[in-house]
Amino acid sequence: MSRTKTAKRRIVTFDNGQRRRKSDLLATEEPLEIQLSAGAETRTVAITMRTPGNDYELAAGFLHNEGIIHGKHDLLQMTYCVGAERHLQEYNSLDVRLSGEKLPELSQLERHFFTNSACGICGATMLDDLRRRNLPVLPTGPQVAPKVITGLPQVLQDEQHIFERTGGLHAAALFDAAGNLLALREDVGRHNALDKLIGWALMNGQLPFHDKIILVSGRASYELLQKCLVAGAPIFCAVSAPSSLAVEVAAAFGITLVGFLRGVRFNVYTGAERIGE
Amino acid sequence: MSRTKTAKRRIVTFDNGQRRRKSDLLATEEPLEIQLSAGAETRTVAITMRTPGNDYELAAGFLHNEGIIHGKHDLLQMTYCVGAERHLQEYNSLDVRLSGEKLPELSQLERHFFTNSACGICGATMLDDLRRRNLPVLPTGPQVAPKVITGLPQVLQDEQHIFERTGGLHAAALFDAAGNLLALREDVGRHNALDKLIGWALMNGQLPFHDKIILVSGRASYELLQKCLVAGAPIFCAVSAPSSLAVEVAAAFGITLVGFLRGVRFNVYTGAERIGE
Repeated sequence: MSRTKTAKRRIVTFDNGQRRRKSDLLATEEPLEIQLSAGAETRTVAITMRTPGNDYELAAGFLHNEGIIHGKHDLLQMTYCVGAERHLQEYNSLDVRLSGEKLPELSQLERHFFTNSACGICGATMLDDLRRRNLPVLPTGPQVAPKVITGLPQVLQDEQHIFERTGGLHAAALFDAAGNLLALREDVGRHNALDKLIGWALMNGQLPFHDKIILVSGRASYELLQKCLVAGAPIFCAVSAPSSLAVEVAAAFGITLVGFLRGVRFNVYTGAERIGE
Repeated sequence: MSRTKTAKRRIVTFDNGQRRRKSDLLATEEPLEIQLSAGAETRTVAITMRTPGNDYELAAGFLHNEGIIHGKHDLLQMTYCVGAERHLQEYNSLDVRLSGEKLPELSQLERHFFTNSACGICGATMLDDLRRRNLPVLPTGPQVAPKVITGLPQVLQDEQHIFERTGGLHAAALFDAAGNLLALREDVGRHNALDKLIGWALMNGQLPFHDKIILVSGRASYELLQKCLVAGAPIFCAVSAPSSLAVEVAAAFGITLVGFLRGVRFNVYTGAERIGE
């Protein structure tokens, strides 16, 4: 997988119904596993979705913030993990060797994001994990006109009263293929807004979302596309940019991914065959 | 703590150097602990920072997305946790009782955000946890003119080349009290961008940030303010809105929190005494 901060991709842009092909740059999104070592002990303490680059700084800053290290003197060395089974993901697993003989007390991490993963991880292995879950194959349809897509943000904005008042809430909305709003949920966390929407659907017998469109107010990350896939939605639209790994999930599983949906314009990163008259 | 989606707060706005007091609405941010039960077994599987409301849906959607439940029939009941020591945080801990006799295999969660917290959690307890860490007290200064604050986003934008190209990266920047850029880091995750910035400082002997200003490209959440505090920065600026809990951290620890920093305008949520001639 990519070690660069950006990834190039061929996309389709729609401008007032006019379709054009162009090249686009995406922000790279890849997992980073932070592993802590001291003496003979080793433990993975975090996996975060990040943009490659400054990984040593990311690990040092994370560990300092969590109170695990208190200065540079606590760090003996940092190295990317290498090994026979790891040659493909060596830049996504970082080993931080502390200067002590034993791992420090890690219970303060327990309220945070603690993981027990012992193996390497990278964007490709995350896609493989998804494939192994035997998720339902998405339908080839529905077919949606560009003007239906461009009409969605206004409906969201009209309904999203709290966002207008606080400017601080993300929204996730469900539409039918004609652009009618079916449900809307809000949260400070965009993954939470989508979880609420899907949880509502689950409890009301509305899953899978096979002929539906999901719209989110912010960016499209790996995590959001994964939730879209598990919910069975064939079309995912974001007001802002998608990450590289979001596009890879969409491409691998046949999701139509729309980004930069603003005014009469939008970009289609994958599955453009569902957009058109 | 609040169960409502918004929280009201008195703030100070600056418009072209003109100072005014007004009332403002914030998006509420509070932790939600999701606890899974089956038969005699109980286990906390996630803690997420969320906006209260639709919590049952949030839990159901999260569990469905992670493959723990596959339909409504897997859910026996969902209740907020109650108990002698929990009366204060009962709306931040949710127990999801599954219909089976045993907890399902949870190893698929291990790559995600697994926690071992057994006790209740709420915004107030998170502030208490921070207080117990004996973090350094922030200095009363520096004193910064409004025009220094309003000049920061343009410096960030001029430097943030990748953001301009992909539209998909968050930035965290460090400035001195005169508004000179000292360092800038970018990432798809805003907490990662700030971790990279602080990690750079740690490894280069630049901590604590006692006379410095942090600027982030997006919103201000609990997590970002907590990192700002641990790094010792007295002034934190965000281009977009802060959450309720971000403001509470800033208020409790004496951080100057600036939000909606755009053009010649910005809001000061806490610590307005550091802004002025």
